[in-house]
Amino acid sequence: MAIELINTGSELLLGRVLNTHQQWLCRGLADLGHTVARQVAVPDTGADIQSAVREALSRADLVITTGGLGPTSDDITRDLIAQLLGRKLCVDDAALRHVEEFFTKRNRPMPASTRVQGLVPEGASVLMNAHGTAPGLIIDVNPNPFRSGGKASRLVMLPGPPRELRPMFIEQIAPLLRNWFPTEGAFICRTLRSTGLGESWVEENVAGPLKHLTDAGLDIGYCARIGEVDVRLTKRGGGAQEAVAEGERIVRSAIGDYIFGADDESLEQTLVRLLTDRKQTLALAESCTGGYLAHRLTNVPGASAVLLSGLVTYSNEAKQTFLGVNPATLAGHGAVSEAVAREMAEGARARNRADYALAVTGIAGPGGGSEAKPVGTVFIALACNQETRVLRRLNRYDRETFKFATSQQALELLRRRILNLAFLD
Amino acid sequence: MAIELINTGSELLLGRVLNTHQQWLCRGLADLGHTVARQVAVPDTGADIQSAVREALSRADLVITTGGLGPTSDDITRDLIAQLLGRKLCVDDAALRHVEEFFTKRNRPMPASTRVQGLVPEGASVLMNAHGTAPGLIIDVNPNPFRSGGKASRLVMLPGPPRELRPMFIEQIAPLLRNWFPTEGAFICRTLRSTGLGESWVEENVAGPLKHLTDAGLDIGYCARIGEVDVRLTKRGGGAQEAVAEGERIVRSAIGDYIFGADDESLEQTLVRLLTDRKQTLALAESCTGGYLAHRLTNVPGASAVLLSGLVTYSNEAKQTFLGVNPATLAGHGAVSEAVAREMAEGARARNRADYALAVTGIAGPGGGSEAKPVGTVFIALACNQETRVLRRLNRYDRETFKFATSQQALELLRRRILNLAFLD
Repeated sequence: MAIELINTGSELLLGRVLNTHQQWLCRGLADLGHTVARQVAVPDTGADIQSAVREALSRADLVITTGGLGPTSDDITRDLIAQLLGRKLCVDDAALRHVEEFFTKRNRPMPASTRVQGLVPEGASVLMNAHGTAPGLIIDVNPNPFRSGGKASRLVMLPGPPRELRPMFIEQIAPLLRNWFPTEGAFICRTLRSTGLGESWVEENVAGPLKHLTDAGLDIGYCARIGEVDVRLTKRGGGAQEAVAEGERIVRSAIGDYIFGADDESLEQTLVRLLTDRKQTLALAESCTGGYLAHRLTNVPGASAVLLSGLVTYSNEAKQTFLGVNPATLAGHGAVSEAVAREMAEGARARNRADYALAVTGIAGPGGGSEAKPVGTVFIALACNQETRVLRRLNRYDRETFKFATSQQALELLRRRILNLAFLD
Repeated sequence: MAIELINTGSELLLGRVLNTHQQWLCRGLADLGHTVARQVAVPDTGADIQSAVREALSRADLVITTGGLGPTSDDITRDLIAQLLGRKLCVDDAALRHVEEFFTKRNRPMPASTRVQGLVPEGASVLMNAHGTAPGLIIDVNPNPFRSGGKASRLVMLPGPPRELRPMFIEQIAPLLRNWFPTEGAFICRTLRSTGLGESWVEENVAGPLKHLTDAGLDIGYCARIGEVDVRLTKRGGGAQEAVAEGERIVRSAIGDYIFGADDESLEQTLVRLLTDRKQTLALAESCTGGYLAHRLTNVPGASAVLLSGLVTYSNEAKQTFLGVNPATLAGHGAVSEAVAREMAEGARARNRADYALAVTGIAGPGGGSEAKPVGTVFIALACNQETRVLRRLNRYDRETFKFATSQQALELLRRRILNLAFLD
């Protein structure tokens, strides 16, 4: 079963937006046991869209397109595909009624341009859009003029806005996929997520012990990002479940202390789970990470049960008012110092009566560095009932990467404390 | 000048990561006056990578690949491309020395697997990697066996990690591009970013007045996202600058109040600039957005001059301790209420002695909703010296989208106050 994905949109090729559809759809398909063989992005121009669709139809059993179904003048995918397949566009009564009702229900006048969304290529099935006006479309290309022997392909056209595309895929396409292409044997994918080790070291520690499994067809992938190295184990068909499970045991016995989660479990999810299980609470005091630690933790449903407060104390005055940092400590050591990090953590812990408090103070840049404390310098403190521990790190990145790397180190410090693992460095 | 981009990595096709390279490289190339004609992502398998490279070489003057140059066993792009082009891999002394020095300088032992990064296809030029071990590579494919008439193409291979790829592109590839492919006439792209209007309404308001320019070759694109609709004006060649500038004037006269920024200027950057210009200060009090407002603002360099503090007060107790919210208000109206939002904003403003304070309290979900206050309900308050204004909104999205949409509404409320624009609703 070959699947190809085509994302249309000049904004993608001009680098104006991230292609979130690729990740989301590839992930959704993988969860259903299908891997996408190729993804292509093309601009909103006739020749590019048509050649990409023609090429994909020449190879794939299923071609999914995103975008170009809306009401504006650059929404041309519908017309181009009808033309490519030699089909007329006809009014679909249900689709047109849906567009009209969309505006009626919201008490908004219907812009004339939106009527075009009631037009569909002859013979296409219409997918109703619960969150917008553009219907999705399914076209059975049978016979398929672009494929050797005329072998049939299915073409699924999804609207571009994520909040329209995603429910349409989950509610309407996923059930159809199970019928169209029952998967042959299981496809198992397991990702083990580590922090604190380099990519080469991860491989050197796990590749040897995994060799008997990879020789037998287990696939290993490594993916290094800032503050994280993932090991991905995949196998398809008979025995896949067992081989991946055995691979996971081997990876865990080699680098288990560094693994904070599996698959989609982020470090922040792990922490909310660990704290919830232990009925423990956390407070945050952030300077240079500017609320990013609080943001990561509060992305996790249920965070409100463990996170009491997060204080983003950028100014010295706020550090004194809200955390009780001593003005003499600020004057004597500077706001970016081990002593201030310690007082911030202890102040946040005491004022919130929390079990743990994490505090971060540093220089995110681009300005503000000195010889003794260059841009990227950061102090991370963890206060708990036993002690307050302060790490010093040098995270020389752009501002947003700095925030991520620092928050990863802070969360890992807390994870190692909760689980009584050795501290790094 | 045709450019194609090939991103390698099974993790992309399995939907494990976002393809940030696509946006970043396409954007960087557009800024140099070049638009990418096609982007393709393929998994780390020999046949897929080779067929994608072969096809791109058959069409494009410049083919850029990302990924697959590292030391682990799934880093196979270097080998596959050497094989495809019939070139041997040879040790490049400078590249190998660089790998060795990378570890020596960091006082870390060199994993044996990293030596492979000293191997390069015969005749390739080596791009030194200032931030990692894998060198980038440039290969002149001349004659080009895959292109009609043997027409030459250039192949640029960049390492996968963003912090290695980005400086290599900026410092080494961009200057070469200016020599390789001097752009014919200017390519001008201007994006006007609005919030508060739907995509169809934006088009209905601007397309007519722009018609004389689009008839003369100005290209308009619309891009709708949560909380934002962009209008993108592009033109190439003679008179491009003037046509785009005239287009911008027309768009601004039609929907100017809704435009918060242009090109890369985000709403948070606009606000930091507006506050800095006016020497005014801001404090934040967040419940359901959980630090995301503070995070957005502190992503802007210079935010420390205007943001005094951000208080993420998840618990009722924290709302009382840090913001002085009255326990009777919490008991009488509930934490998610107009009255509590008002007291949060006024408390944050008073305790920070700030010119403005924004406060947000709501139900991000998935749990916690009721009939009177369903999931997605949010109250957004803005306190300043004239008055405190509170908006009620219903943002029915997943948790992270909820945070974004809410933060956009809050920042827009502040922008309209600072600029004395009419409030929405």
